[in-house]
Amino acid sequence: MSAAGFAQTPEPPYYAVIFTSQRTEGDWGYGHMAARMVELAQTMPGFLGVESVRGEDGLGITVSYWRTEEDIRHWKAHSEHQLVQETGKKTWYENYALRVAKVERAYGK
Amino acid sequence: MSAAGFAQTPEPPYYAVIFTSQRTEGDWGYGHMAARMVELAQTMPGFLGVESVRGEDGLGITVSYWRTEEDIRHWKAHSEHQLVQETGKKTWYENYALRVAKVERAYGK
Repeated sequence: MSAAGFAQTPEPPYYAVIFTSQRTEGDWGYGHMAARMVELAQTMPGFLGVESVRGEDGLGITVSYWRTEEDIRHWKAHSEHQLVQETGKKTWYENYALRVAKVERAYGK
Repeated sequence: MSAAGFAQTPEPPYYAVIFTSQRTEGDWGYGHMAARMVELAQTMPGFLGVESVRGEDGLGITVSYWRTEEDIRHWKAHSEHQLVQETGKKTWYENYALRVAKVERAYGK
């Protein structure tokens, strides 16, 4: 699981935030923000990694991995991230779904 | 959360299987199999929905949602799915990571 695009996560248990989203048309600063959020998340306590894909139709799935639920709450409450969440709802996302899940087991090739 | 590409999941708790994969070059029957697996999964007990995206670079994330862990075990053990898992390891996937997680909370736009 050391290839590009794959998160290097420890043995479970840990947490996953599954963020599914449909982008609106146009960039509106989205590309810049998305790169900045990954950069910022990496500085947060408990951040374990992220996997992110967006298809040509604008549907995307980003899964970020965290050590604890408390770490996820801190990340959600970060001031710069909060601003981004507001703009996301208003401008960048037609629809989104966010799920917080506890990873219980994992394996791979 | 009723838009195309989004799973219509009930109130948590329920389970998610997060499958991240990097495709090899060429189709080798992959497209046909992937459609068939979604069709087959929909007939399995406890199946709640699926969200799936693949990027131009061949990295993909598919998240399927299930009522219980037992439902996930049944799906993994299905004979046709088992054959596909073997071919996946040998032919379709350069790398993959599979994580089973319990969804504890969810919200969306």
